[in-house]
Amino acid sequence: MCVLGLGLIGGSVLRAAVGAGREALGYNRSVEGAQGARFDGFSATTDLTEALEWAAEREALIVLAVPMPAVSQLLSHIKDVAGDCPLTDVISVKRAVLDAVRKAGLLDRYVGGHPMAGTAHSGWSAGDARLFAGAPWVLTVDEHVDARVWEQVMHLALDCQAVVVPATSDEHDAAAASISHLPHLLAEALAETAGEVPLAFALAAGSFRDGTRVAATAPDLVRAMCEANAEQLLPTLDRALELLNQARASLADRGSVAELVEAGHAARARYDSFSRPQIVTIAIGEEDWRAELAAAGRAGGVIRSALPVLGSRR
Amino acid sequence: MCVLGLGLIGGSVLRAAVGAGREALGYNRSVEGAQGARFDGFSATTDLTEALEWAAEREALIVLAVPMPAVSQLLSHIKDVAGDCPLTDVISVKRAVLDAVRKAGLLDRYVGGHPMAGTAHSGWSAGDARLFAGAPWVLTVDEHVDARVWEQVMHLALDCQAVVVPATSDEHDAAAASISHLPHLLAEALAETAGEVPLAFALAAGSFRDGTRVAATAPDLVRAMCEANAEQLLPTLDRALELLNQARASLADRGSVAELVEAGHAARARYDSFSRPQIVTIAIGEEDWRAELAAAGRAGGVIRSALPVLGSRR
Repeated sequence: MCVLGLGLIGGSVLRAAVGAGREALGYNRSVEGAQGARFDGFSATTDLTEALEWAAEREALIVLAVPMPAVSQLLSHIKDVAGDCPLTDVISVKRAVLDAVRKAGLLDRYVGGHPMAGTAHSGWSAGDARLFAGAPWVLTVDEHVDARVWEQVMHLALDCQAVVVPATSDEHDAAAASISHLPHLLAEALAETAGEVPLAFALAAGSFRDGTRVAATAPDLVRAMCEANAEQLLPTLDRALELLNQARASLADRGSVAELVEAGHAARARYDSFSRPQIVTIAIGEEDWRAELAAAGRAGGVIRSALPVLGSRR
Repeated sequence: MCVLGLGLIGGSVLRAAVGAGREALGYNRSVEGAQGARFDGFSATTDLTEALEWAAEREALIVLAVPMPAVSQLLSHIKDVAGDCPLTDVISVKRAVLDAVRKAGLLDRYVGGHPMAGTAHSGWSAGDARLFAGAPWVLTVDEHVDARVWEQVMHLALDCQAVVVPATSDEHDAAAASISHLPHLLAEALAETAGEVPLAFALAAGSFRDGTRVAATAPDLVRAMCEANAEQLLPTLDRALELLNQARASLADRGSVAELVEAGHAARARYDSFSRPQIVTIAIGEEDWRAELAAAGRAGGVIRSALPVLGSRR
């Protein structure tokens, strides 16, 4: 396989994949990333064409691990040099990548992916082969996806010790808006609001530290993920603003924040008891397999060990 | 000393104070709390009059560690039975307690306190003698406070391994609104918003878990702290809403959240590099000592070892 982009996520995929016994080549635009990877004993290059030719010779799985703004240009190179390779990505939005892949004419070889893991740090040196251990890794089951490519990407996610959550691109993006992009915006607003209050930093403890942890993420990364998912983030942000405005009115008029606090506590309790049944009864490629996987994922189902592929039950 | 209320905070104060060699009696209204403390080897009673008579005999420091709604009734008992004892509290708002203390006629014996530590758990069993280690513990320096009482409460906080941050009640409340009460409301809104989105809990990872951690706090405690500080929380919440509304407009109109993300990241970076110089040059009771301590606290200053008291320099 070939990992394009050796930042936190791409670098961790390369480490985990090689750790699982895969042959893999990394590409990074900047010399620092590629040198860092080579210094740590991995194969890596700053020559994109070389990387893609290597992938094309082997029909290797290509993993796009670059920021969203770099995707389109990279896809046109892939189309030119390695257009027959199976293709996935680890980018935090799925609709925008899907549209770019369609535009590049690579849709039939593509299955979207998103490992839901990260830290506030970035770059090759921040990577960790264990980053994905136990984390949900979304694989898209949009109508176009091919069973054989899906199987390959599923094996990559499982090799990285993740649990696979099947979902459509749009459902993924709506969920990501609420559990990843909205938290980032709230954390930024909290940090800035407190930063304007004398004494606030002097008193800040756990609530503030936890609530602003993700505000330490590099601004470019936060912007890239939020802005590429504007379509889903806007209604999600509107809903949060509605809840906060209601609480504001209730506090001003009746001195109470009961409604928001009780609803929020109940939601968090539902999350804490949310179960993760293992998906075992669906075969990849069988009739309606994409819709069945999407429904199972929506219900909390995860793939912990490889599902069979139709025609290759062992 | 006498600790009234043996929940998470009061129970931790009792443990830490006894651990530091103090003689202390705990009071808890419910049998469970007092029994739990006795079972763990501490002196505790469910008889408030007995506890206050014990304190009055010794002129012991009384520590109010009950929820805000229970404060006024408790203060009138203290006034009746132990009106000469020095008095402090560990409640998360300071103006409301100050007003209640003034109304009860106990102002001349009172110094407000607030250890900035906690967990999502509550009750005697959740307490921990090390809960305050390294945490900021606000002591109020409003105009009325007496140097001798202040000295006693400072020693209690230092015995609990906290660092003392001097502040006026109103400055404390404004800061607490931004670093404690606002984070709770944002966490509740985040949990509820995500809870309405299919697939969200299935994908939730670090950003969501951190961002909603405090939503696991008992709703009554969150309501008590937010509602008792409505005067400061409302403008703080309004500022956060203003920042989020600006980001919403910018995302919708120009596809950008740059302004909020960059401001939030910069604020978080300022917090990470916020220094905590030790306050060493102020003597308690000297001219303008209260205003000087307030200014030092505002600048990040903390008391790590006991300040001298005028007339008792050793």
